[in-house]
Amino acid sequence: MALRVTIWNENIHEQQTDSVPAKIYPNGMHGAIKTLLENELGGAVTVSTATLDEPEHGLTKDVLDKTDVLMWWGHEAHPKVSDEVVQRVYDAVLGGMGLIVLHSGHYSKIFKKLMGTSCSLRWRSSKDREVVWNVNPTHPITQGVADPIVIPLQEMYGEYFDIPTPDELIFISSFTGGEVFRSGATWKRGLGKVFYFSPGDQDYPVYHQKEIGKVLANAAVWAKPVMRGEPIDATFHPDGWFDKN
Amino acid sequence: MALRVTIWNENIHEQQTDSVPAKIYPNGMHGAIKTLLENELGGAVTVSTATLDEPEHGLTKDVLDKTDVLMWWGHEAHPKVSDEVVQRVYDAVLGGMGLIVLHSGHYSKIFKKLMGTSCSLRWRSSKDREVVWNVNPTHPITQGVADPIVIPLQEMYGEYFDIPTPDELIFISSFTGGEVFRSGATWKRGLGKVFYFSPGDQDYPVYHQKEIGKVLANAAVWAKPVMRGEPIDATFHPDGWFDKN
Amino acid sequence: MALRVTIWNENIHEQQTDSVPAKIYPNGMHGAIKTLLENELGGAVTVSTATLDEPEHGLTKDVLDKTDVLMWWGHEAHPKVSDEVVQRVYDAVLGGMGLIVLHSGHYSKIFKKLMGTSCSLRWRSSKDREVVWNVNPTHPITQGVADPIVIPLQEMYGEYFDIPTPDELIFISSFTGGEVFRSGATWKRGLGKVFYFSPGDQDYPVYHQKEIGKVLANAAVWAKPVMRGEPIDATFHPDGWFDKN
Amino acid sequence: MALRVTIWNENIHEQQTDSVPAKIYPNGMHGAIKTLLENELGGAVTVSTATLDEPEHGLTKDVLDKTDVLMWWGHEAHPKVSDEVVQRVYDAVLGGMGLIVLHSGHYSKIFKKLMGTSCSLRWRSSKDREVVWNVNPTHPITQGVADPIVIPLQEMYGEYFDIPTPDELIFISSFTGGEVFRSGATWKRGLGKVFYFSPGDQDYPVYHQKEIGKVLANAAVWAKPVMRGEPIDATFHPDGWFDKN
Repeated sequence: MALRVTIWNENIHEQQTDSVPAKIYPNGMHGAIKTLLENELGGAVTVSTATLDEPEHGLTKDVLDKTDVLMWWGHEAHPKVSDEVVQRVYDAVLGGMGLIVLHSGHYSKIFKKLMGTSCSLRWRSSKDREVVWNVNPTHPITQGVADPIVIPLQEMYGEYFDIPTPDELIFISSFTGGEVFRSGATWKRGLGKVFYFSPGDQDYPVYHQKEIGKVLANAAVWAKPVMRGEPIDATFHPDGWFDKN
Repeated sequence: MALRVTIWNENIHEQQTDSVPAKIYPNGMHGAIKTLLENELGGAVTVSTATLDEPEHGLTKDVLDKTDVLMWWGHEAHPKVSDEVVQRVYDAVLGGMGLIVLHSGHYSKIFKKLMGTSCSLRWRSSKDREVVWNVNPTHPITQGVADPIVIPLQEMYGEYFDIPTPDELIFISSFTGGEVFRSGATWKRGLGKVFYFSPGDQDYPVYHQKEIGKVLANAAVWAKPVMRGEPIDATFHPDGWFDKN
Repeated sequence: MALRVTIWNENIHEQQTDSVPAKIYPNGMHGAIKTLLENELGGAVTVSTATLDEPEHGLTKDVLDKTDVLMWWGHEAHPKVSDEVVQRVYDAVLGGMGLIVLHSGHYSKIFKKLMGTSCSLRWRSSKDREVVWNVNPTHPITQGVADPIVIPLQEMYGEYFDIPTPDELIFISSFTGGEVFRSGATWKRGLGKVFYFSPGDQDYPVYHQKEIGKVLANAAVWAKPVMRGEPIDATFHPDGWFDKN
Repeated sequence: MALRVTIWNENIHEQQTDSVPAKIYPNGMHGAIKTLLENELGGAVTVSTATLDEPEHGLTKDVLDKTDVLMWWGHEAHPKVSDEVVQRVYDAVLGGMGLIVLHSGHYSKIFKKLMGTSCSLRWRSSKDREVVWNVNPTHPITQGVADPIVIPLQEMYGEYFDIPTPDELIFISSFTGGEVFRSGATWKRGLGKVFYFSPGDQDYPVYHQKEIGKVLANAAVWAKPVMRGEPIDATFHPDGWFDKN
């Protein structure tokens, strides 16, 4: 069965008439990312999208149950995402669903809830060049990806990035201004896998760049559930339980 | 200045007249832990206690501001701890306060919020012997601690323990029944340090055991804030900001 | 193409007439492990074996070039393994070949050279039961593996195991005597993957146990090279090199 | 007792009359580093130096026994360091001595032996500016250190840096050319602590920069032995050994 990816986007910047994002992403960033994934994975993936203004933000239990990997793009509407939906996504991740958090999603409720830190960083939007370096050459996410990836114009995200120590550090970026950033990193949470990838912003055409698509496609395949269920619960085990098996 | 430790205990089991915990811990588990710490650290520590039934559970902003390291024992009253107090403790940890989570505190709101996982485990209370092994011999928490520590009678906590990969694994325990458990582990969260230590239960006299006191004293010293403030917030940095310094 | 596994065994204990190992492993431990792998992987694997007494210990450059994953069992003949062959295996691992080190191989030249530590441990051979617990339920190596694996009789290997912090901790074992051991762990070294797995000893029939075969088969598939070449070498890169691409 | 630091330097570049290194470092890089450490730590440190051309490279067993922390600067003479001395330093580290490896020491025999990888990297010496960022704000090594440290002119060291996953990542650098580098990282090896720090080169006056001195002083204090002895050896433990204590 094809990998089932759902791309969630708050989809606000792109709706503002004549805005820069509206011009760069006429189909929304979720639309652009969908195209990137389909170009890389073809029939091996089925991509759906969901946005903030849909009922339950488009993330009903049924949708999540049928999602192998959820991608998340949010920015100015983080507080508008309902706590109930966040809890639902959180439970899905702990139960095995993959989650890929993009760019300004570092400050989303779901990412902060999974990380247990502030997820803060230094930033500046002034047309820095971002150069993304592979520091994990045998990781599935970096296979077939150019090293480095050069993003001609991009918002600067700089250290200190207040995240837990990654299970795996995948990419480190530099910016024209001299800053650096751990731009790709993974964590396991319960039975699910989480990948954070910072390149991508509403004001720059990053999600039209083929190399970025390759990373996201690799990440989606990597984040596929190994198993899927409820978050694990504490369970009583009497003396000798495993000897009786 | 002496290290300022606050021991928080829900203090419920010990209040039940004629209960086992009331007999083992007539001054509460917080009282027993206080004695352990004072025996190890003497004048180098000032120990306060706080319990669930105090206003704001005894954890006002003023109390937390004057606490270097908070120890947390909870069990059946996890849901009764107010979300507001949990958020306050969370902010204090991200801002630098040390936190030591004990035994059944694995299921406390504050630990789950900091870990981002279910923190579930296998368990059984049937008088297993727990043997605690040092797997990090040069870590500050293990200095001067017997290897192994033998706890004659203790509740069994077994893997799989659903926690994020520890930054540092410190202790692994075995139990009579054959189970194992990562019984001591550390994580950094924001500017604060977190140590989880599983030995200790209301039905067994673990908190009267000197070796356990040595571990808790070492952990308190280790968890002392390096710096202290608010959780880090994302900040704008214009081009060239650090060159102007 | 089928995965190409080479099992290296010093093959000494099994050659001693009427010895316990000779009776348990009439085809050598390498023979038993070969059967385990073929039973699990069938046509998806091609298994070769090599032993100490062959020219160049059976590990010529040609053999290594055609090996995807090398398994290593050694014990009393560690010092007899030539430094030249060890260097050759080391270079192959840094260049991408997978390596699975078994049991007493913890003290082999190749494992110590890759780890950079003493790899020492506590031990006792007195018929302990070993119980092997899965602490990484979504790792490829643990899929389809019973949790726990019970090994009725086995040599005891106990902490402190002097290894570098594993990249991934996979299994923890307990023993009848109360000891614990990090019995399964992974490290990346250069472009290669290394898995250490402690169950298995010349005096106990561990390599006839189906669950052990499942672990070894999973590990072989996991350790398959992502890419293969020479160990990476430091390289000069002139200013602007990547912009010219 | 004051911390006993020994700075080892191959001391070749500085001996070449009229060379750039001879002009920048008239007392050798070891002399400059000695001054940096003494300026930061005053009477809390006793600094000795040793060089390649001394008998046993100045690293006799007696010298190492009296060394708490060894710093290592080497470059073109790596192959001239005797294997016997390397083994002696290796044993001292596994037995508890701290080791701080500087810049081109990434390719030293001792660093490669402790890491178990090629330790290769990309490089260019063409007057890049290096900006060193703190990614571990509560680590002892970063306390009181400017963030970032700006090094006006320095050799470029770029990823991929072929090292094992660090136990702790401390610094990440960027370079004018756009490269990034994990420029400060720690590993435990046996009972000893290892810190690698890349800033510093024979052709640039990095070791006259006060901020670099602060990092090295912090690192020396951090790397101080917790205990000191021989590398750990595998030991027999009969059934019940710890119950008899």
